[in-house]
Amino acid sequence: MPHLEALLPLLSLDRLPRTGWLVAGVPNPETIAAHSLGTALVVLALGPKVEPRLDVDRAVALAVLHDAPEALLTDLPRAAAECLPSGAKAAGERRAAELVLAPLSEHAWQRFEEFRAQGTREARFVRLCDQLHLGLRWLGYRREGARVPGGFRSGLAALECAEFAPCAALRAEILAAADELAGERGRS
Amino acid sequence: MPHLEALLPLLSLDRLPRTGWLVAGVPNPETIAAHSLGTALVVLALGPKVEPRLDVDRAVALAVLHDAPEALLTDLPRAAAECLPSGAKAAGERRAAELVLAPLSEHAWQRFEEFRAQGTREARFVRLCDQLHLGLRWLGYRREGARVPGGFRSGLAALECAEFAPCAALRAEILAAADELAGERGRS
Amino acid sequence: MPHLEALLPLLSLDRLPRTGWLVAGVPNPETIAAHSLGTALVVLALGPKVEPRLDVDRAVALAVLHDAPEALLTDLPRAAAECLPSGAKAAGERRAAELVLAPLSEHAWQRFEEFRAQGTREARFVRLCDQLHLGLRWLGYRREGARVPGGFRSGLAALECAEFAPCAALRAEILAAADELAGERGRS
Amino acid sequence: MPHLEALLPLLSLDRLPRTGWLVAGVPNPETIAAHSLGTALVVLALGPKVEPRLDVDRAVALAVLHDAPEALLTDLPRAAAECLPSGAKAAGERRAAELVLAPLSEHAWQRFEEFRAQGTREARFVRLCDQLHLGLRWLGYRREGARVPGGFRSGLAALECAEFAPCAALRAEILAAADELAGERGRS
Amino acid sequence: MPHLEALLPLLSLDRLPRTGWLVAGVPNPETIAAHSLGTALVVLALGPKVEPRLDVDRAVALAVLHDAPEALLTDLPRAAAECLPSGAKAAGERRAAELVLAPLSEHAWQRFEEFRAQGTREARFVRLCDQLHLGLRWLGYRREGARVPGGFRSGLAALECAEFAPCAALRAEILAAADELAGERGRS
Amino acid sequence: MPHLEALLPLLSLDRLPRTGWLVAGVPNPETIAAHSLGTALVVLALGPKVEPRLDVDRAVALAVLHDAPEALLTDLPRAAAECLPSGAKAAGERRAAELVLAPLSEHAWQRFEEFRAQGTREARFVRLCDQLHLGLRWLGYRREGARVPGGFRSGLAALECAEFAPCAALRAEILAAADELAGERGRS
Repeated sequence: MPHLEALLPLLSLDRLPRTGWLVAGVPNPETIAAHSLGTALVVLALGPKVEPRLDVDRAVALAVLHDAPEALLTDLPRAAAECLPSGAKAAGERRAAELVLAPLSEHAWQRFEEFRAQGTREARFVRLCDQLHLGLRWLGYRREGARVPGGFRSGLAALECAEFAPCAALRAEILAAADELAGERGRS
Repeated sequence: MPHLEALLPLLSLDRLPRTGWLVAGVPNPETIAAHSLGTALVVLALGPKVEPRLDVDRAVALAVLHDAPEALLTDLPRAAAECLPSGAKAAGERRAAELVLAPLSEHAWQRFEEFRAQGTREARFVRLCDQLHLGLRWLGYRREGARVPGGFRSGLAALECAEFAPCAALRAEILAAADELAGERGRS
Repeated sequence: MPHLEALLPLLSLDRLPRTGWLVAGVPNPETIAAHSLGTALVVLALGPKVEPRLDVDRAVALAVLHDAPEALLTDLPRAAAECLPSGAKAAGERRAAELVLAPLSEHAWQRFEEFRAQGTREARFVRLCDQLHLGLRWLGYRREGARVPGGFRSGLAALECAEFAPCAALRAEILAAADELAGERGRS
Repeated sequence: MPHLEALLPLLSLDRLPRTGWLVAGVPNPETIAAHSLGTALVVLALGPKVEPRLDVDRAVALAVLHDAPEALLTDLPRAAAECLPSGAKAAGERRAAELVLAPLSEHAWQRFEEFRAQGTREARFVRLCDQLHLGLRWLGYRREGARVPGGFRSGLAALECAEFAPCAALRAEILAAADELAGERGRS
Repeated sequence: MPHLEALLPLLSLDRLPRTGWLVAGVPNPETIAAHSLGTALVVLALGPKVEPRLDVDRAVALAVLHDAPEALLTDLPRAAAECLPSGAKAAGERRAAELVLAPLSEHAWQRFEEFRAQGTREARFVRLCDQLHLGLRWLGYRREGARVPGGFRSGLAALECAEFAPCAALRAEILAAADELAGERGRS
Repeated sequence: MPHLEALLPLLSLDRLPRTGWLVAGVPNPETIAAHSLGTALVVLALGPKVEPRLDVDRAVALAVLHDAPEALLTDLPRAAAECLPSGAKAAGERRAAELVLAPLSEHAWQRFEEFRAQGTREARFVRLCDQLHLGLRWLGYRREGARVPGGFRSGLAALECAEFAPCAALRAEILAAADELAGERGRS
């Protein structure tokens, strides 16, 4: 049953949590599936505003697939990746992608490879949207009352957004909203 | 902050459950976000095998967006929709789509409208993949030990798959695997 | 098995969340069952203090039943109801009530109809207690650290409580406690 | 703020689980609030069918209150109660009731005392409905796929239902449905 | 199957919540198992620094076992224990320990008895570490954004730590960090 | 605040799930903290029966610490580890242990190193107890109704238990109970 064998392992994506949030103290974080969908929605919000034009639909497919290997590898937060030998996480993703995406379809495999190689504008744009979704979720959890370590803000502020003006615009909005929130809490 | 105003409401998608499963007795069902992502993955698995060729990436975008209005409307299970006046759920989705997708981008809005109108092969294919993801999840929950009412099987068996052969193939695999599971439980 | 057919569908009430809280950013909100019980407890706290006397026990029964149709319809938050055509949510509740409460007992059906018609003092009192339980839960979630959008406060402040003095008293206590909490957070 | 001081502690009822289910292996059992509401719904289903007539609304109020002291005492499963000195659990409930229900209203206090004294038909009927809701939930969890120790069946079968014919009827339906389920699993 | 009969009941420890936190408004508190493990880790952090020397490994075993009877008794928060007759909770723990720990091994039983008798320095040290883990968790939940009633701070401040200097040091750090957190929120 | 800096990161252990169970389809698996405690309880059950005598308390300390580095590394299931380059997971554990356990105490560090080196009987015994707790949990989840892939049974059957007779005895009990369960389901 080739289709089932390819699709059933991907169901884990809607059970596996984004573990970085657990470590950061968010008790009910989103799953890997939800993050992937959220990244695709950021692509759909910003992509059509990018100049020169992007192939937005292809970028959406890249976003949908960008974390699919984590169905096997799970979500390794930064601290975990830094404990592993240099390059090990990337090698693990590549191997997991072979096992999980190659059986899905040649199309899926090529789209993932395009994302991983970071050689096209679409691939670089999706990487930024991935980071911006992290920022959005950080803002979202803070608005709900979670207190999350300050490292997220500086990471977001340091993102290199020059290639894609709409990404810079969203980043600025997130930072402004987060600062406003911090101000409300009397930490201005 | 126009980007934030468009994107923050969509974060609800990763909190709102697929309520139909709750009613059917699955205690921890997937979220709307996870279902949308899962539908997009089914599109990526089957789309490239469809003849004549589909625009797979556009179909992926349709899948990502097809339930986005539920960020406002929530997931109304079939029994709920049948209690509402005829056409009310569809009208509610249209209105919710205007509120949620129009601010996202013109591109997102057009993709959603294409899905809703069901006038293209891509739109009809995504509707089938949406139903097939329901079938996959049904099989997945049953494999985990959940007992789910039998209506799901007959609904899946009755799906009209003639336009897209790979959909018929996946449907057949799901039904075979579910029957095998039922047999194992001594209910052959 | 007529009793089972009437009672089993109502078990969904202890799985279905109050979805409005999910949209508002409360990650683990109470279920519809818990809200119904909480409303009944508000009735038991305030009802005996109302002048002229209410039939408190009948009001308790109204509270227990007031959201029972949501076992079928699920909890439609205000934003969802506003997307539906005018009157659709009320029509859906009526139809769901027929399906869910008529098989329970004639007594249950009459109590629900009394609540829906809003023609008796007990029915209007229970409607207020329903809103006041929403206010209590809002206060409770805020005291636990959740940050919930400000709309709740103004909705509570705008409640028409003149007919029932104890309702006005509880409302005043909730608002005072919420303001004290906001002050503690440096947002006075 | 007397109303708040009486009502806020009762919010715990929608967080505290029915711990007996946790011990029995149900991972997401209902809360004490949901069980109380469920008991009230069983009262509303069966009460109107009892001969000679019961005061159904008063019985509903008894059901709503019957476990309210557990907001303080928590839900002590049978095995826990058996470890405590004889009479300790009952004494604890009485003390918790004084602390939790006396501040609510004289009406609430009297209703709880009526339930505890078990001197009226309404009180004895509600005690049975409490046990029958346990049976319903047992059936419900089993229908969802949970495997729960067999002790529940014999406890239900041993319930003394002679005083209230509709209770005997529901009990028989639950047992028949559970046996049918066991048969389906090949354990006839 | 003697080993299974001894070990399976203890699996409940990883499902049963620390109910005191639920009452205090922490929606997803740790389990009894996690608290026991956390206490053992506090023992491993502070024990080696105690003068004169402790038998640290024996103290770890005491920590692992100190709440094991709650697999049967569940976690009775202070308010619950105060409702029970004087001495009832302690008697319940003793009885539960006989049922749960005696079948485990003579070694386990002796270690638990040593903890309960509080006659050795190791036993008194573990009791303090138990309280300090409560303090750590209180700080942890507050850092995540939870608002927990102020009683925890005074309870921690009143702990008698004179016998074990490292316990006094950790207590001081927890209080300082909690006060700093309160200051950040504008409540200095 | 050296004690806090050492202890706070370990709180993650009671949030991080044992991800292997999520992938295998158990929706609410235990945390790493609960698994560590459970392993220590298996040590306390079997350790005193081992001949020649073990230092049971030291073995308990090894069990408490054996997965502590996962506070940083998270729980990498077998499939994830197999995607990483050979030796990468072990290297990651070592690095995470340096970061997480060295600040705890020299005693904790030595105990973890003893476990990792597998050079003592206590260390090898704890490794087996770790695997046996996995088997216990597998049996426990199955008894609750979860259906978990068959690979667990063969892994357990293949465990090398010759050095410790009580481990072989528990393993035999788990396998017999699991087979009995499978028989009940009509899959003999």
